[in-house]
Amino acid sequence: MKTLLKNAKILSMKDDRIREGHIVINDNRISEIGPQVDLNAKYDKVIDCEGNLLMPGFKNAHTHSAMTFLRSKADDSALHDWLFKEIFPRENNLYKGCVYELAKVALLEYLTSGITGVIDQYFFPEEFEKACKEYGFRAVNLIMYDPESRNKETCYELIKCNEDKDSLVKAVIGLHSEYTPTDEMFKTTKELLDETSLPFYTHLSETAQEVSDCLSRRGIRPMKFFDDLHFFDRGGAIFHGVYLDDNDIEIIKNRNVIVVSNPASNMKLASGVAEIKKLLSKGVTVALGTDGPASNNALDMFREMYLVTGLQKLVLKDPVSIPAFEVLKMATINGAKAMNLKDADTLEVGKLADIIMIDLSRPSMQPINNIINNLVYAGEKDVVKMTMINGKVLYYDREFFVGEDIKQLYSRVQKMTEYLSVIKK
Amino acid sequence: MKTLLKNAKILSMKDDRIREGHIVINDNRISEIGPQVDLNAKYDKVIDCEGNLLMPGFKNAHTHSAMTFLRSKADDSALHDWLFKEIFPRENNLYKGCVYELAKVALLEYLTSGITGVIDQYFFPEEFEKACKEYGFRAVNLIMYDPESRNKETCYELIKCNEDKDSLVKAVIGLHSEYTPTDEMFKTTKELLDETSLPFYTHLSETAQEVSDCLSRRGIRPMKFFDDLHFFDRGGAIFHGVYLDDNDIEIIKNRNVIVVSNPASNMKLASGVAEIKKLLSKGVTVALGTDGPASNNALDMFREMYLVTGLQKLVLKDPVSIPAFEVLKMATINGAKAMNLKDADTLEVGKLADIIMIDLSRPSMQPINNIINNLVYAGEKDVVKMTMINGKVLYYDREFFVGEDIKQLYSRVQKMTEYLSVIKK
Repeated sequence: MKTLLKNAKILSMKDDRIREGHIVINDNRISEIGPQVDLNAKYDKVIDCEGNLLMPGFKNAHTHSAMTFLRSKADDSALHDWLFKEIFPRENNLYKGCVYELAKVALLEYLTSGITGVIDQYFFPEEFEKACKEYGFRAVNLIMYDPESRNKETCYELIKCNEDKDSLVKAVIGLHSEYTPTDEMFKTTKELLDETSLPFYTHLSETAQEVSDCLSRRGIRPMKFFDDLHFFDRGGAIFHGVYLDDNDIEIIKNRNVIVVSNPASNMKLASGVAEIKKLLSKGVTVALGTDGPASNNALDMFREMYLVTGLQKLVLKDPVSIPAFEVLKMATINGAKAMNLKDADTLEVGKLADIIMIDLSRPSMQPINNIINNLVYAGEKDVVKMTMINGKVLYYDREFFVGEDIKQLYSRVQKMTEYLSVIKK
Repeated sequence: MKTLLKNAKILSMKDDRIREGHIVINDNRISEIGPQVDLNAKYDKVIDCEGNLLMPGFKNAHTHSAMTFLRSKADDSALHDWLFKEIFPRENNLYKGCVYELAKVALLEYLTSGITGVIDQYFFPEEFEKACKEYGFRAVNLIMYDPESRNKETCYELIKCNEDKDSLVKAVIGLHSEYTPTDEMFKTTKELLDETSLPFYTHLSETAQEVSDCLSRRGIRPMKFFDDLHFFDRGGAIFHGVYLDDNDIEIIKNRNVIVVSNPASNMKLASGVAEIKKLLSKGVTVALGTDGPASNNALDMFREMYLVTGLQKLVLKDPVSIPAFEVLKMATINGAKAMNLKDADTLEVGKLADIIMIDLSRPSMQPINNIINNLVYAGEKDVVKMTMINGKVLYYDREFFVGEDIKQLYSRVQKMTEYLSVIKK
């Protein structure tokens, strides 16, 4: 299958230059790129980009996709009440088969926002994997050992996908956080990490409370706790990282850990603002995530990009930080790093064809002054014309090509949501 | 002309209930609303809403539409440099005829965001008026006396539109701020206000610097300065209002002044966060604005709605403030108040047909848990299916019906933008 994307502006993300040209895709990888492509060769599919922008898809490096059923269910409530009275009791209702459907609504939304890959962390990861493979969506599945629902053997089953280098879904190993697992869960997870040589992923330092609780319980901060136990010896990523001190940052740097920031969720839940400028100045790699639809509530990388720089400007009283191109790198290249997807980061020959088209004819993109700035400061889902993953167009002109009757999906998910929403006494 | 919008969910904004029903529009006003409408009567136009949501259009109560030419031109720079090195020198290049074209790009963007009315403040207001009337867009034109470009007589010309009660464009009188006008400008503007009995509009307390400068120059804060001179005797609105003390708020309340908050612009320019929760608790009416495309850079009421509540949650460390329905009121009813548009605030019989349709079949709107919360926390331009102003559909399924070849407009605006961008030495 040979696809030609012709007459485009191309932002490869190798640098901040935008060049006119074309892209040829052979099956799932870029085989040619630039102005010299032979437009008259034989192609199975030709898309005329009409001068619109092609760029690498966004990587949403932290999300809980199937939480769509809790979207906008319990906003404007205090964090503790929200978690313990609204979220947890309803998550207890989850049953086999529903994560598969609930996650699909999130996958559709990712496509509308030009997101071509996510790191997902939730219950029933096997169902998430199934949904992604069915739709053709790229993901990293965060597998958590849990004696009650997922023994070591099942974890091994779930990371088998890594053996197939072409698998759309890969797996890594992680924990929910420092404050929820039992000692046995820490121990077995560490064994799994050592046996598989995989990096480690966890929520960390999301709230001030979490850090102070850890300090009172353990006498050390969460980052040091995990590092002392060698969890980060092969790198990985922490989600949120709002409250990090200099020593935490030192560990993060030494272990090549990536900080995945979730500015919208941290704002809406009143958790705080991560010190992104400081992290960048110390050489830490920062990626972006939407977090789940219950806390955000949109799954939109444009929102995260706008907020990650906007909130630094606000908090630091400094409109200069963080420049737009740095933000775009977080949302693309750095996200790919967090996903261990070295070949889905830029648009170059040999790279995976995870490509989005930005419609420059939408009024928010006009006039053309500085496309990069404009993407970060005026971009939104409305400007995403095409989302292609692994060489396949899954979204074009607001239509989905995922082999599903969307209305029927919504109807099933609505019934499921209503069933799951009942809090059982 | 009789139009039927059938099979809708309707959020009238009179209360927070969503009801199933239909709306009949007679020319430019709502003539019937509810479940009892006769679907078989004779209509000139029938739109099947297919269960989507109808609600009043958003009112963008502070913007500088024609600044599209400066959008994303000079981001990530310090405020003083931004204004004096990037913005002002290029605004000096503005010539007769360009505001008319530049503003149209903004009008198109408003339509994509469900905005059915704006308060605009910029150079060449007569050209903005022309663009609005041509497109069928509703606006309040803020007329500023300026001895160099607009004498008293011209001001009177520009507010003549108020005599026509059906005019799409109305006019009010204002000043740029406390810190730019000359004494003569204050004096003449006050005369104009008294002679016309119009309310007063101005930027006020946008930055800490502005307030402290006023204190050192005049010994009083900007709000008291204007109030001592009786500028607010007939109410009006202040734009930004980030730095207001208790005495300022007292004046605002006593004079029935509306505070128009611009959270995105205030964040991006690192100006600060207005104390919205405090203002609301004191009974102040708060409306929302996008500010201009050079400082935001999008013209998107969904962004402002998300930020106005998100930033309060963050700054007050309180996820409970401000509830979503309060935010929707700011973006609709309160904006209409700021515009003096008593009959474009809710969907009721007799009200102006400024109506938008929200596409509930977009993935970000699914599943249906709480439509009001979801609009505020997960809404974006992507979900706006229709924007109707004064009974006319100006935007539907991403197409514009404004009697203009959009591509040709973009091409003219692009040339203009490039010409205006050259800073003359």
